[in-house]
Amino acid sequence: ARPRVGYFLSSKPTQALVAEEIKKIKVGDVKGLPRAVKVNTSVYDAVVTMFLEDVGTLMVVDNEGYLEGVVSRKDLLKAAIGGGDLQKMPVSVVMTRMPNIICTTSDETVLTAARKMIEHEVDALPVVRPVEGQEKKVEVIGRLTKTTITRLFVELGEGGR
Amino acid sequence: ARPRVGYFLSSKPTQALVAEEIKKIKVGDVKGLPRAVKVNTSVYDAVVTMFLEDVGTLMVVDNEGYLEGVVSRKDLLKAAIGGGDLQKMPVSVVMTRMPNIICTTSDETVLTAARKMIEHEVDALPVVRPVEGQEKKVEVIGRLTKTTITRLFVELGEGGR
Repeated sequence: ARPRVGYFLSSKPTQALVAEEIKKIKVGDVKGLPRAVKVNTSVYDAVVTMFLEDVGTLMVVDNEGYLEGVVSRKDLLKAAIGGGDLQKMPVSVVMTRMPNIICTTSDETVLTAARKMIEHEVDALPVVRPVEGQEKKVEVIGRLTKTTITRLFVELGEGGR
Repeated sequence: ARPRVGYFLSSKPTQALVAEEIKKIKVGDVKGLPRAVKVNTSVYDAVVTMFLEDVGTLMVVDNEGYLEGVVSRKDLLKAAIGGGDLQKMPVSVVMTRMPNIICTTSDETVLTAARKMIEHEVDALPVVRPVEGQEKKVEVIGRLTKTTITRLFVELGEGGR
């Protein structure tokens, strides 16, 4: 019998098709640039950087540029109402520190990364890659946020991806 | 001629099918509960409420419960590093005020609401409805955030919606 072209496709529930399309998208396809501060930056300067760069999460890197922490608007707000001297307090006091940071990689699916943000209640994930010959150290090569997901949702809804 | 069932569907590009499915979802289907403070609440108490309720945006309502403003983590962080007395400063000083608030409604599509969040660079929208006989006043009946969109994206990717 002649194969019925397209029949198999159309017999699938649309839900499954949507899920398949979403699973094709990799973090590397949509990731943004990471915004980072050095680990000895003050909380005050981190807040200023956050406003200047217009991001909700900053990566905190050591002197060699490797990921050491992540600091969110929420972390900084908590520090800011705590009453300490924000110009003297280093950001390392309030950041989430390696190895407790939830990360993603360029070849992970955006679906998996999005699930991590929901499960761990974070607004952004650093996109990292291992450093050759330096076990336990990672380099930050990007940033994936709930804004990235929202933008992607709009693109999908407009048929543009 | 006998209609070729499913043929039309399968001849559509998958992108268009995904877009169609996304356009079916209304704000009312996914909206969360609004979290609100009164307009005379201090910035300090608003921050505390934000942490207790674990939200990134609070609705600010007048004494009758109608929407008067919206305050984000970003607004509060800006106030917190400004150096004023946060216990004495009312949240109304730092909030975005009506009619400048970007809102959505239950019967709007989530796609349209998501596009508003991207275009206006906000993390959350109040879901509102008009008040009968009170022109220019609105009641807040929900909240749509980038977290809502991320959760929806995960559901779509898992084939669960």
